[in-house]
Order: sequence, then structure tokens, then C-alpha cells
Amino acid sequence: MSVVKPLPNYLVQRYRGWKATTYDNNKAWYRHLSNEGQHPRAMIISCCDSRVHVTAIFGADSGEFFIHRNIANLVPPYEPDGGRHGTSAAVEYAVTALKVAHIVVVGHSSCGGVKGCHDMCSGHAPALEEPTSFVGRWMDVLRPGYERVKDIEDEAERVRALEYEAVKTSIDNLMTFPFVKESVESDLLTLHGLWNNIAEGALEQLDPKTGSFVPV
Amino acid sequence: MSVVKPLPNYLVQRYRGWKATTYDNNKAWYRHLSNEGQHPRAMIISCCDSRVHVTAIFGADSGEFFIHRNIANLVPPYEPDGGRHGTSAAVEYAVTALKVAHIVVVGHSSCGGVKGCHDMCSGHAPALEEPTSFVGRWMDVLRPGYERVKDIEDEAERVRALEYEAVKTSIDNLMTFPFVKESVESDLLTLHGLWNNIAEGALEQLDPKTGSFVPV
Amino acid sequence: MSVVKPLPNYLVQRYRGWKATTYDNNKAWYRHLSNEGQHPRAMIISCCDSRVHVTAIFGADSGEFFIHRNIANLVPPYEPDGGRHGTSAAVEYAVTALKVAHIVVVGHSSCGGVKGCHDMCSGHAPALEEPTSFVGRWMDVLRPGYERVKDIEDEAERVRALEYEAVKTSIDNLMTFPFVKESVESDLLTLHGLWNNIAEGALEQLDPKTGSFVPV
Amino acid sequence: MSVVKPLPNYLVQRYRGWKATTYDNNKAWYRHLSNEGQHPRAMIISCCDSRVHVTAIFGADSGEFFIHRNIANLVPPYEPDGGRHGTSAAVEYAVTALKVAHIVVVGHSSCGGVKGCHDMCSGHAPALEEPTSFVGRWMDVLRPGYERVKDIEDEAERVRALEYEAVKTSIDNLMTFPFVKESVESDLLTLHGLWNNIAEGALEQLDPKTGSFVPV
Repeated sequence: MSVVKPLPNYLVQRYRGWKATTYDNNKAWYRHLSNEGQHPRAMIISCCDSRVHVTAIFGADSGEFFIHRNIANLVPPYEPDGGRHGTSAAVEYAVTALKVAHIVVVGHSSCGGVKGCHDMCSGHAPALEEPTSFVGRWMDVLRPGYERVKDIEDEAERVRALEYEAVKTSIDNLMTFPFVKESVESDLLTLHGLWNNIAEGALEQLDPKTGSFVPV
Repeated sequence: MSVVKPLPNYLVQRYRGWKATTYDNNKAWYRHLSNEGQHPRAMIISCCDSRVHVTAIFGADSGEFFIHRNIANLVPPYEPDGGRHGTSAAVEYAVTALKVAHIVVVGHSSCGGVKGCHDMCSGHAPALEEPTSFVGRWMDVLRPGYERVKDIEDEAERVRALEYEAVKTSIDNLMTFPFVKESVESDLLTLHGLWNNIAEGALEQLDPKTGSFVPV
Repeated sequence: MSVVKPLPNYLVQRYRGWKATTYDNNKAWYRHLSNEGQHPRAMIISCCDSRVHVTAIFGADSGEFFIHRNIANLVPPYEPDGGRHGTSAAVEYAVTALKVAHIVVVGHSSCGGVKGCHDMCSGHAPALEEPTSFVGRWMDVLRPGYERVKDIEDEAERVRALEYEAVKTSIDNLMTFPFVKESVESDLLTLHGLWNNIAEGALEQLDPKTGSFVPV
Repeated sequence: MSVVKPLPNYLVQRYRGWKATTYDNNKAWYRHLSNEGQHPRAMIISCCDSRVHVTAIFGADSGEFFIHRNIANLVPPYEPDGGRHGTSAAVEYAVTALKVAHIVVVGHSSCGGVKGCHDMCSGHAPALEEPTSFVGRWMDVLRPGYERVKDIEDEAERVRALEYEAVKTSIDNLMTFPFVKESVESDLLTLHGLWNNIAEGALEQLDPKTGSFVPV
């Protein structure tokens, strides 16, 4: 363990400030959460990107959202092959153990993962094609999405369309999980697709009727 | 796409409130983040648990932390087998593309994933042993940790020790990634281990010298 | 160079302590900052006063704030006359090169510069009226502010009002810089006014609606 | 005042944390500083750069350092022409009103202002030559320094030499102020030159005998 280092001072200081204010004022709620367990209303699947914190956008308190964050907010298809599937494990836990009522997939503008997928699929990022590229193999999940947008002429529009596809693909893949499908069909779970424009603070949602994104 | 539903009204309302206040007051910062790209100082690996939001504890603004969240804040070992490894992809992107200076693994009390691992490894959760259990297969990452704590007599202590092991195992596994090891050895990256007690608002950190957790 | 002296021992000692602890634990972050350049979120304009360190109040790490400090946290009006304008240079660099999203002007209680201006403008500090007084000529920037508060009867209140005026005058003057105005109007930059009460640890901010200071 | 915006939430939160911990624990000291006035031991002249916070390096508490920060830590020559000279005002106040015992000029690596001066003086930055460029006119202070280093062949070495010159020029210029010279000659004030290597955490000081910089 000699590779670990102490926490930077400014984070220690900020933690102590949080402890003396937010924690102290909400001690009863933290104790409740600890004693009674978590009962989140929704699972959020969003990107690791430092610019998109869903708790801020939705004014979420501790205990509200069960949040899985990965590169490009992707859900791979159902593959019960005995392998390690972190995203599938999170979905399984949220739906079968916590019985959340909503799964919200949140995409965003300027997504580095989606851009990498775009460049890889269009032949401009050979390094991402390597079998050893974790980002490349992860973004393979979105390859079918690229096929659907590749004929859009303008590159910026094409990349944006692929950001939308990342959300739609994840929702399609969620429905390949038997426990998700069953919960959705029993009206115990609803799925939602969002896309956040960082610069504009805009939020668009997937319209069930048209399959396209419209302003919230 | 007919399975998706519109966003619940209370979330729409909260979003609109955020847009009219936080976003509006910080519009310049969001535009800056969009125009100039993200330059996060650290990657955080924490649990999906709805009770542990690291951005709150550290008063973090948009743009500061690149955050990966999965069940039990686990990093599996390096396995460049061409498969889909979401966590490995996130680590690869953070270290090689964003060149973050810190990776902070954050464990916590009452972790459902760790408890499941404990029950599975001690023979009390046969369902998690099924090859089709995503949570079970994901928690296999922590099996070696269970071996190290299984002789602790008191169950509560044993489970807590396993929560600590989840952090330590992730840090050990991080060091199996060549690009992490190289960055750490070149002093371009440091690793940190934290554990948050939800009820007490306490934060403990992994001590490099003793390998045990001490209050921050 | 024979006028320079070696650094006092106690500072050498403190530096060595910092190097062996803070620097050593954050070496990766300092290397990152050096390799990737600075990307501060905000420019802070505050007083040289030894009692007001904004990095402490805001738990700021290296890399967060671009900080200009001068007597009485003043920004003079835009004067592109080919002369040497240190404050204007700092503002220009922050806005046009670093593209910071925020400029925060921070005033404070017991400001010696503001008190000097008050005494000068009320005829009690003839030395400051001298053309050769650098402090006097610098505080001329705040003369219009004195005109606005001079009728307040109580001296302590009048001086405090002048401290507020120092912040407001700076913000007004910032808006005379074409590149500031343009960035503000394009929503790429926002301005903020703060005043810190040293004794009470209180922080007040300029309210956009009323133009007066209210507790944060 | 409608151009100002409220302070971002995360800064409000951090301030409240500071108030409840650092301020609260040191209330007596803040009251002392407010009641008794500031009695700083030294004036620091350093760069606005967000990566160089001297209070951190020297573990400085409130009240210790009177800090002036401008682009490239420059002191212009004595020019009592009745104009606005912010740096000269800060020096005058520190020496004649506060009677500090030390002035420490702190330069640093990767200085954007020094690099700009280098590019301007070597004919590669025509925009900085414009009379309306505040950064360019401010960096004129360092033109004589450029003349002394321009024949160094390697560009990186030349720029570093110019960073050293920024410190030496400021110290030379300090000595053109009659009140500085008199205080130095009466042993009431000593001058110090430092240069901080950000990546290495190294600190070098100007050696009185050789006029070159040596490790602290």
C-alpha cells in the first residue's frame, strides 16, 4: 500500500467544512439513511464527464438517485456469460434489489467517448481499434449506432446524432435484460432518455412517439 | 422507443429551477467548460449508492472531478482480452487522455454490494453464485479480499473489514494496469483510498505506512 | 545584487516542510499543472492586506484562481494610452488569454487604502494629496465613490460605505473595458462583488437588484 | 449593478464550511487582527498565476504576508509623475506605512507573462506591440532584461533566464524608490529574490554574491 498518498490538504479542509455544516445540519437524515437503508426513487446512468453532475441539475439530496457513471453512459446488451459486467450488475441491483421506479439514461454534448467512437468507426482512430484499447472495446457497444448516423454529412451534426444514439442504444439494450423488460411490462419501471447540452444548460428528452429528442 | 416515458414533472420542475438559477448564474462557466474542454484534477471511483455523493462532501464544482461509479467502487484487474470492460475504459480515459493527477477510490459503510459479497463468500447467498448473477460475478473481484477477512469473528466487524478491502483491492488492481503503474512511478499520478461512514459523516483514509484506515 | 539577502531561516524551514509533505503528496498535480498549463475558473481581485487570503476562505487548490492583489482591490477605468497599467494587464490576460468565467472583486473591513482615501478626500491627509504619493494617486480611482458617501454622518459607517464603493467602482470600471463588456454581454464572463468582515468572518455579496451588500 | 451575479453555490458552500471550522477555531486571532491592525513581517510580490500560491509554500497564516500579485511579479521603476501606479502604491504602503522588514519577489516557471515578453521582444508577437495591449505595455518593464538574455541559443533556457531577469529587474527597480533605498541602507528592510519551479516544487534564491539563482 506504499503507493497510496494522503488526501490533498485542500480536500481535507473542504471535507471538514462539509462535516461542520451540511453534515451537522442534516445528521438526522444521514442517520436515517444509514439505519433504514437506501430507498432511491430512480437509477441514473450518466457519463463520467466532470461537467455533467445530475445531482446538481435535479437538486438531488442524498438518498434520491442510485447513480452509475461510465464512459458515454452506455448499457451493453444482456450477456449472462458468467463474465464481469459492471454496468449490468448495477442495473440488476437497481431493478431487482432496490426496485427503482425509473431508469434515466443521460447523454451530453461534447462527449469524449462518443467522439472517440465516431473517429474509430469512421477510420480515423486506429489506436482505438486495438484489442487492448479498453475505451475502444467499450465504445464497440455504440457501433450499431454509428451505422445509423454515418450518412449525415455535417460532422458536428453526425457526432451529435451519435450522442443521441448512445442514449437510445442504452435504452434498447436495457430492454434485452429479462428483469428490466418484465418490470417495464408490469408497470413497475419506466425508462427515460435525456441529453444535456453543457454550454446552453439545455435538457432534451427522448420522445416516445417520434424517437427523437425534444426540449424538456 | 415506445417503452420510454416523459420525465416526471417534479424533475422537469427542478430542472427548470436549476436552469433559471444555478445555470443562469454560472452560464459563463458552463460555456467555458464546453469551449475549452474538461480539465478535471482527479478521477473519483465511488459506489452507485444513493447515499454517497462525493461532489457534496468536497464542495466540488462542475469540471473538478471525473467520476466513475459502480457497485462497491471496484476496479477489476487488468485484462486486455478484447472484452467490454467499462471500469477499465474509464480508468484508461482518465489516465491516458485526461491525465488526471489523482485517482481517489471511495468506499462507504452499509455497502449493499460488499454485504452481498460477504454473504455469497460465506455460503449464505446461493443466488449470487449463479453464473447468471451479474452482481455475483461482479463481486467476484472482491473474493480475494474476503479470504483476508473471513476469520474476523464479529460479523459487523468482518463486513466493515471487507468494505475496507474493496478499496484496497481496487488500488492493488489499479496498479496492475501498465499505464497506471507507469504514471504512478513517474510521479504523474497518485492513488488515494477513502472510506465514508454515512451515519457519522466520518471520512477515513488509507494510511500508506500501515495499510489500515485512519480518520482524515 | 549585493542588496539582496538570503531567505530567512524560518521561511527556508517552512518551505522544506511544504516540499516534503504538500508538494510530495501532490507532486502529480503540480506536474499536471506544469505540463498542461493553468485553466483557472475565476479571476480574483483582492487587497494586498495580509488578513484577507481568499484561497483559505474558498478552500482553493493550486490552479483554481488567477489572483491579482493590489491596494484596496481597485480596477482603474479603461485607459489604452500606451502607459503601464498592471491591473488592466492582469484583467486583459485573464479575460482574453485564460478566458476565465468569473471575475470576483473582494473588498474587506479595516482597509487601510480605503481609510487613506477617506481621509484624503475629507481633507485630513494632505500628504496623500501630493503628486508624488503613489498611494494617493492610486486611491484617486475611488474619489467618485467618496462623493457618493460623503454625506453619511457617522464616520465608521461612511468608511464602510466607501469600502463597498471600492468594490462597486471596480465593477463599474471593469465594464469600461471593451473585452470585459463583450464577454459579459456574450455570457462568457460574470462579475461578482464581495466584502469580507475580518473580525466576524462574515462575507457579504453585492446584490444585483438593489446594488447593496447582503450576507452570503 | 445589474451586471453582477450571485456567487456560485459551490463557493457559498465552501465559504460556510470555512466559517464553521477555520474561522470558528481562530475567531480570537481574526478579532485580534481586526482590533490591532495588520503587522505583516514581509511583503511578497508574486505573479497572478493560479499555480503559485506563496501562502501555501510558506505555511503562512492570516496577518503574515502583505501580498501584491501582478502579471510576472514585476516592479516598474520609480516614476513619481502623478499617474496611477498600483505596484508602486503597494510598495510605498508596505515600506512607509507598514514598515515591513522584507520584500520578497517570487518568480516562477512557465510564466505566461514572461513568455509573452520573450515572444514580443523577439518579434513573434506583434499584437503585444500594439499601444493598446495592456499586457504588452506592462511587459515593457522587462525589455531591458530581454536584452541581457537574447543571445542564449536554446529557447527554453532563454525563457528561463528571462524569468530570472523578471525577479532581478524588479529588485533593481525597487532600489530606484528613495524610500526603499533608504530603508535598505538603514538596515530596516531586506530584499529577496526567489524563483519557483512549479513541476518540481523547487525553490531557488538569488545569491547576493554571484547574482545567479541557487537552490534554497
